[in-house]
Amino acid sequence: MITKKNLNPNLLRAEYAVRGEIVQRAYELEKEGKKIIYCNIGNPQALKQKPITYVRQLLCLTEYPTLITDPIAKNSFPSDVIEKAKYVLSENPIGLGAYSQSEGMVFIRKAIAQFIKNRDGIESDPTRIIITDGASKAIQSVFTLLMKNSNSGFMTPIPQYPLYSATIELYGAKQIKYYLDEEKHWELNESELESSIKEAKKSGIEPVAIVVINPGNPTGAVLSKENIKMIINFARKHDISILADEVYQENIYSENNKFYSFAKIMNEMKITDVPLFSFHSTSKGFFGECGHRGGYAEIRNLPAEVYEEIVKLQSIGLCSNTAGQIVTYAMVNPPKENEESYDLYIKEKTAILKELKKKAEILAEEINKIKGMSLKSPQGAMYAFVRIDLPDEKGVNLKNMTEKEISEYEAKRDGEYCLRLLEETGICVVPGSGFGQKPHTYHFRMTFLPPLEDIKELVKKLKDFHLKYLKRFE
Amino acid sequence: MITKKNLNPNLLRAEYAVRGEIVQRAYELEKEGKKIIYCNIGNPQALKQKPITYVRQLLCLTEYPTLITDPIAKNSFPSDVIEKAKYVLSENPIGLGAYSQSEGMVFIRKAIAQFIKNRDGIESDPTRIIITDGASKAIQSVFTLLMKNSNSGFMTPIPQYPLYSATIELYGAKQIKYYLDEEKHWELNESELESSIKEAKKSGIEPVAIVVINPGNPTGAVLSKENIKMIINFARKHDISILADEVYQENIYSENNKFYSFAKIMNEMKITDVPLFSFHSTSKGFFGECGHRGGYAEIRNLPAEVYEEIVKLQSIGLCSNTAGQIVTYAMVNPPKENEESYDLYIKEKTAILKELKKKAEILAEEINKIKGMSLKSPQGAMYAFVRIDLPDEKGVNLKNMTEKEISEYEAKRDGEYCLRLLEETGICVVPGSGFGQKPHTYHFRMTFLPPLEDIKELVKKLKDFHLKYLKRFE
Repeated sequence: MITKKNLNPNLLRAEYAVRGEIVQRAYELEKEGKKIIYCNIGNPQALKQKPITYVRQLLCLTEYPTLITDPIAKNSFPSDVIEKAKYVLSENPIGLGAYSQSEGMVFIRKAIAQFIKNRDGIESDPTRIIITDGASKAIQSVFTLLMKNSNSGFMTPIPQYPLYSATIELYGAKQIKYYLDEEKHWELNESELESSIKEAKKSGIEPVAIVVINPGNPTGAVLSKENIKMIINFARKHDISILADEVYQENIYSENNKFYSFAKIMNEMKITDVPLFSFHSTSKGFFGECGHRGGYAEIRNLPAEVYEEIVKLQSIGLCSNTAGQIVTYAMVNPPKENEESYDLYIKEKTAILKELKKKAEILAEEINKIKGMSLKSPQGAMYAFVRIDLPDEKGVNLKNMTEKEISEYEAKRDGEYCLRLLEETGICVVPGSGFGQKPHTYHFRMTFLPPLEDIKELVKKLKDFHLKYLKRFE
Repeated sequence: MITKKNLNPNLLRAEYAVRGEIVQRAYELEKEGKKIIYCNIGNPQALKQKPITYVRQLLCLTEYPTLITDPIAKNSFPSDVIEKAKYVLSENPIGLGAYSQSEGMVFIRKAIAQFIKNRDGIESDPTRIIITDGASKAIQSVFTLLMKNSNSGFMTPIPQYPLYSATIELYGAKQIKYYLDEEKHWELNESELESSIKEAKKSGIEPVAIVVINPGNPTGAVLSKENIKMIINFARKHDISILADEVYQENIYSENNKFYSFAKIMNEMKITDVPLFSFHSTSKGFFGECGHRGGYAEIRNLPAEVYEEIVKLQSIGLCSNTAGQIVTYAMVNPPKENEESYDLYIKEKTAILKELKKKAEILAEEINKIKGMSLKSPQGAMYAFVRIDLPDEKGVNLKNMTEKEISEYEAKRDGEYCLRLLEETGICVVPGSGFGQKPHTYHFRMTFLPPLEDIKELVKKLKDFHLKYLKRFE
């Protein structure tokens, strides 16, 4: 009979804390009747964010084209959405029920290229764009492409979104960790990058790519132009590819920060020899259409023979889901100012982004008032990576432990903290160890997606819990 | 700069003929204005099959719930579909825009279990069902789970659907080929299974699973109960898992054949110690909803600790797309006899299946009239695996070649045949070597999805081409 011993050891090693043990425990508690506030995952519509009307109307009509010619459509749908649905079906007459080309529908890839051009003022080649089932799948495809052997190393930030570490474990590659600088609002530091790649090479790892998440997950940090330039030069110097996870590009809350895409900056620098894979998604921003699994990769500076291999990889899985492709189309092609659905679209968009901004600010302000907690105010994304001070435990002497033992001990401690928080308050967050953190520091990641009133109550509960929790160390 | 040399060698080795070179050439020819008849892929709606109205109405209302309460909905939607849409949103109040549980929405998994119970008269456990982005992704997840190391062997039929060989290459596992018996309508042969597993073990391969495709792709064969029993006993004897690809279960055309699921037969045999992974999809049958990427795996006889690992794997990709989940729900929960949409549903279903049956019959009848071509009449699925006689080429002596050279030479020959067929007639089929075939035999796979009139014209073209092609050997 099959047991764990018979299984893929890479899978056994892979960990994905965002849906890990603490979340499983939350499901159990919820079944028992406890009210849970899910702050573990960036899943806006599960936390009462309403879908953008325009997106759903377009989906509705393209899924059921009969409705377009139904006389009632005119009463229930804005004229521009009806026209757009007709356009979608004229460009893709086989409809949503047929496999599309492996890379996605041609007209949508053209619309994505236009979106990038409008955003960045640079050319984008639709034949170098692949539509995928969310950004996660695009990222995993690129890892598959670039993983030459078990010594291939992928540089990932610490803290990072655990998709990266899980994928590296799963594919049996090597993770090269570089620490983000918490003191400097989580920016990347050149000497840290240099020393981490140097050490990796020394131990026989062959670096192939660097992952950068901007705006940051879990950090909420937005990278400056200078920081991005530094990273591009670093990648060029070491002849590695850049994986730019830019799924939170619409989620910028601070007036002092602006989103710069890697594509734009690379273009400004006139660099054409660093392979760049940029990822975007329909799951974040103000759409929050997580369930529809829409997203894409735009690829630059990659020879045709290499690009063909990633297309072949997509073809083995046939194509990404067509509803997700339509949502992606809606994202890159919103209503225009003179169109009927424009006003409502802007109203909904603004309300969502404004509320997110307010929640980010309140959360940071209130958390920083709590003794023993601190937070670099999120400039973007949907997360707060809250630092917590945990006093040393009596009878534990880190000096007698190996590095690995310390890391396990510390992961156990923040795991235990989050579990107690869940049990006592119903607040479900993810331990910092699930994302990685500097030794001897503790964090947890929480989304600021719950409704504003809940956030206030939540901070109060956090404070009460934390003070009570600390008592055990007195 | 990155070149093919820097890439994942497993990816470079993987081949997926269904979307391979010949199909790429077809796209080119189409761009140049040539009419192409795409018989390369089971993509019904790309070949004018209409979507089932019930499915699209349900999608339409669940994507845009505002319409449910719009007074006009009553005029444009059957009452049972409106009620079902309400039910879907009551069971899943967060809607289609949120990530679902990693395994899929709970109520849909329950509906799948009920569907299996109704189909087979056996119990099915919804907590052992995982909804996926089509069956392909479910199959790849199971390969990931069971692949312990690069010696892990997966037994696959020859001919096979190339997802299997491509996935094995991609994951760096070993393929253990077993030949289907063309003379006995492509059934599995016990002594062939025994000799192939014995030979694999001798060369150091550790068999972990056997893949069975029933109804067969590309063979169109439907397995008998006795054949299935033999396979189950074989798997038990050798302590390996069964991967039952049952995506064509609704596509049965011969009165003499009936679909038996592996789950049902295993239950009859009272066998509880052979892990069984059964796959189903919304892409085939009479739905043909390929683009929506819906499907599931039902899993039996697997310890909880092992099942948890496959759930963790799903969680790394978050969840399958929700529109595909709704289509899956529609598939397992069709309108009931007393419901308003029932009559239209049955009418559409019957028309599609009847036409497919007729096309399968006509194709087999006409092809068997062509000298130098033969076809075991498809009992199920959507494909004809046509055998073609190609005379020996002058000046080529197979006796001077190694086994590998012969295989490459023969693959080149049927590839060349299919390419010429495409260039001269516009008919796009896939060479038999893309699926595997016995040495010294040649085939191609074609779907019988094009409209009936096209099929007749197509067979005529095939005949003319074949006769002309043979002339070169005179």
